[in-house]
Amino acid sequence: MYFEGSEKKAEIVIDSNKLSLLSDFDDTFWQQLVSCCNAQILSSISNDQCKAFLLSESSLFVWHDRLLILTCGVTHLVNSVEHLLKNIPHQHIKQVIYQRKNEYFSHEQPSCFGDDIQLLAKYIDGWAYRFGEMDAHHNFVFHQKNQFIAAQEDKTYELLAYQISEQASKTLTTPGLSAATIRQFLNIEQLLPDFIIDDFVFQPYGYSLNAIKQEKYLTIHVTPQEGSSYVSFESNLNLIELAPTILAILQPASFDLLTFNEFDFVEKIPEIIPANYVSKSLVKETLTNGYFVCFANFIKPQLSFNKPAILDITGENHAL
Amino acid sequence: MYFEGSEKKAEIVIDSNKLSLLSDFDDTFWQQLVSCCNAQILSSISNDQCKAFLLSESSLFVWHDRLLILTCGVTHLVNSVEHLLKNIPHQHIKQVIYQRKNEYFSHEQPSCFGDDIQLLAKYIDGWAYRFGEMDAHHNFVFHQKNQFIAAQEDKTYELLAYQISEQASKTLTTPGLSAATIRQFLNIEQLLPDFIIDDFVFQPYGYSLNAIKQEKYLTIHVTPQEGSSYVSFESNLNLIELAPTILAILQPASFDLLTFNEFDFVEKIPEIIPANYVSKSLVKETLTNGYFVCFANFIKPQLSFNKPAILDITGENHAL
Repeated sequence: MYFEGSEKKAEIVIDSNKLSLLSDFDDTFWQQLVSCCNAQILSSISNDQCKAFLLSESSLFVWHDRLLILTCGVTHLVNSVEHLLKNIPHQHIKQVIYQRKNEYFSHEQPSCFGDDIQLLAKYIDGWAYRFGEMDAHHNFVFHQKNQFIAAQEDKTYELLAYQISEQASKTLTTPGLSAATIRQFLNIEQLLPDFIIDDFVFQPYGYSLNAIKQEKYLTIHVTPQEGSSYVSFESNLNLIELAPTILAILQPASFDLLTFNEFDFVEKIPEIIPANYVSKSLVKETLTNGYFVCFANFIKPQLSFNKPAILDITGENHAL
Repeated sequence: MYFEGSEKKAEIVIDSNKLSLLSDFDDTFWQQLVSCCNAQILSSISNDQCKAFLLSESSLFVWHDRLLILTCGVTHLVNSVEHLLKNIPHQHIKQVIYQRKNEYFSHEQPSCFGDDIQLLAKYIDGWAYRFGEMDAHHNFVFHQKNQFIAAQEDKTYELLAYQISEQASKTLTTPGLSAATIRQFLNIEQLLPDFIIDDFVFQPYGYSLNAIKQEKYLTIHVTPQEGSSYVSFESNLNLIELAPTILAILQPASFDLLTFNEFDFVEKIPEIIPANYVSKSLVKETLTNGYFVCFANFIKPQLSFNKPAILDITGENHAL
């Protein structure tokens, strides 16, 4: 059974001077918003600064003046963005960023990135970029073209692990696995000391975690099945520093780093990345909204020959 | 303007003792066959052993007892295979092999590999494999499950070059380029001495070449546009030996080798592949139809940072 772990992602910043705070919207509003992309709210946690919703497909974070939504599977996230743009006066929106990464099964998706930004272009002007090559891992980024300039301390980190080790895949697809066991496997206590945590184990496998502490957040989504495994970390914690720990646990065949406003990216990479990986893509750019964006894809060169995957008649991996 | 260069491919072997030869079918039959996948015949060349058709999307080769068809773009090749299976008595078909590689724009395709083999399964039993990982270059192979065993000297080679150098891309997208200039750029005289050649330059760019000499064939298809460039070589000539020449001309960021019955693949690779490439995937297997299949994907590690691609509002590369 395969599942598209790769997320689409939207971040929307509002002018909290002009509008009642985003955090004033009630849960019914957010339920409606996520239902537009065919997801549901499973649970939530909150503190003074942030409310974090765990979704049937990934996560939604709402701060006073911004929201972040990530959805995986075959959700149609751009429809949720459209819903928001219709419900918040145009002049109150300071910035919209919409992202989409390469997918394992892009032919299964209800739309492609081009379709999505054509829809957004009905509401807002924007710029679109592709970080990384089309035939390799890549990340599409669309952002609104206006006067908004991001603060330098407004940092975001993504670490996306593909094809985790056979051992990690086996552990994370063990029937009846508990959230506590997965937290232990992922070393959550060490990664996230004193965070409020909300997590969920999907059936037959799959795992999501939201964690918040003051203004800090981290979200983890695990699609563990061999052949199309994918584990994503997204946070305003410095995931470049945490990368060695995460990579040691998951040992992916390939991983991506995507950062917004990590100004030391170029210098830090050679110090942090384990020596058994090589860089397939390295891309950087300062966008007109002020974000300094870096993307890097790393792969582990393969030195010995494997067997092919045997597929069943639907084209899926056989007997996983 | 983008174009999906990656081909689907089918090879069908018939029992020439039971059937009138495949080469007895007239051009009307082949025109009908290729129209089933929405392609057309542009021209043809022939010798005693083979008739080679250049198609609006790639190529068709017909020998007395086998045919090979490759089609790119958004052609629906499996429909042509179905047409053949309906028109040749089942007991005359010795072997069907159907292949499909990773695509740049798989969401644009009329079907995925799983759909295709479900259709084929209505007519023939088969095995399906994936050579290479889902999030990297890969090649799907389906073949008929029966008593057929390929002869050891029945060899096929594919060399697939992705993201050719900026210089090669620029040269091959020069307006008004002649076939002669492209042949010179690709060093065809050296690669194919004394072959009968049929080639075609597409507008605004793109190039196809069929070449035959006795039982030998080679076909080249060039999709030169930057961002999604792709050049494929398929032949029963030893493309591993020709690889250094081809790679020196195109300097792709990444390339794949796929061979059937190249028994020295594992030993030859380290001798032949230029030192600036590393192996991302290495896969080998002997299929139950007797073919020893090897797949390897090589990438050129990137050491300095590039700029992202700027896209227009349809998600395509801007201003190429």
